[in-house]
Amino acid sequence: MQKKAVILFSGGLDSTTCIALAQERGFECFALSLDYGGRQQVELTKAKQLTQQLGIAHKIIPVGLNLIGGSALTDNEIAVHDFKESQAIPNTYVPARNTVFLSIALGWAEVLGAYDIFIGANILDYSGYPDCRPEYLEAFEKLADLATRAGMEGKHFKVHAPLLKLNKAEIIREGIRLGIDYSQTMTCYRPDQDGKACGNCDSCTFRKKGFEEAGIQDPTHYF
Amino acid sequence: MQKKAVILFSGGLDSTTCIALAQERGFECFALSLDYGGRQQVELTKAKQLTQQLGIAHKIIPVGLNLIGGSALTDNEIAVHDFKESQAIPNTYVPARNTVFLSIALGWAEVLGAYDIFIGANILDYSGYPDCRPEYLEAFEKLADLATRAGMEGKHFKVHAPLLKLNKAEIIREGIRLGIDYSQTMTCYRPDQDGKACGNCDSCTFRKKGFEEAGIQDPTHYF
Repeated sequence: MQKKAVILFSGGLDSTTCIALAQERGFECFALSLDYGGRQQVELTKAKQLTQQLGIAHKIIPVGLNLIGGSALTDNEIAVHDFKESQAIPNTYVPARNTVFLSIALGWAEVLGAYDIFIGANILDYSGYPDCRPEYLEAFEKLADLATRAGMEGKHFKVHAPLLKLNKAEIIREGIRLGIDYSQTMTCYRPDQDGKACGNCDSCTFRKKGFEEAGIQDPTHYF
Repeated sequence: MQKKAVILFSGGLDSTTCIALAQERGFECFALSLDYGGRQQVELTKAKQLTQQLGIAHKIIPVGLNLIGGSALTDNEIAVHDFKESQAIPNTYVPARNTVFLSIALGWAEVLGAYDIFIGANILDYSGYPDCRPEYLEAFEKLADLATRAGMEGKHFKVHAPLLKLNKAEIIREGIRLGIDYSQTMTCYRPDQDGKACGNCDSCTFRKKGFEEAGIQDPTHYF
């Protein structure tokens, strides 16, 4: 029987590449998206379409992080800024986002009998988010075994972060090799109603630069 | 300024006692409840009333764990059974429940500038849930520092489990000492529409036994 994996899936470039890599490693993929209110309704629609094209299972789980706020991605009162070269963590940081995301993935994994979770975290072209660091991911893996009945019964959960040490250009090359149509993925933090990208937020900036460096024409629809 | 704490709050006996203990330790309390669908709408109404009586802040965050299922508490198709003496984890175990709960608490704590989280977990009169064990709670505490901007900046999150090694009778005595009116708390896994308790599920059984052992009259409304 094919092994199952839960993939944290935003519909963006990184997590779509993650699905393709998990499939290449032989996993049956179960994509998980969170609907944490705020700006990403267009992103979720795109994510749903993408999983349908890929023919994989997909769940969108509502989590009211908009009621907590504290981030430009969950609180519509906070503006997403254009990219600026800086060491500071930008206001698109969502407090405890990956911990919430991974914990719901863990719950679903346990119900499915899956012991592999894929996350598209990477430490090179990321925005300094604490919950993308390898030491964080290792700590979550330890927690997962202690947190679950499956772990008590001797199962070991593995958190895979296959993009962790790749830069955006390398991620894109991997995706192209695996046949991903990146025009269908959406990365932008502030897309328009039609899902077109702004081209200037952190996320768009890293993505654009990635296509340039990879020497691959950027198929993104910008507004 | 008074230090803030986020309290995981179900409206039940344990988490209400937790609030009183956190207040005794000088914390300004922010109660967090999750609405994970399933059976606990009456519980949430009671929880809201209780926090209003206690005069503390309260958030109910929706988290669609009912879409994941796998537990009698989140899937209405799975029945809650009467208490049975057994070593097995009962079907009221919600996969990754405390991890989801703690991670959302962590997000709220970071937004509030709170570094203390209280959870009513205990290892004596609990149902064998993995995510109530001290080693689990310690692992979460480590994760919290790695997961957050606050942790990166040198803050340390503390997970308090003041009930961890108390039995139900001891918890009840603590609560009575602190003036809790336990008739207002709701513990039952399958209450009726009016919030009356069944008296026979695991949760009711531990609670009943606790009042007996404490020699305190059980004020619970049973149906």
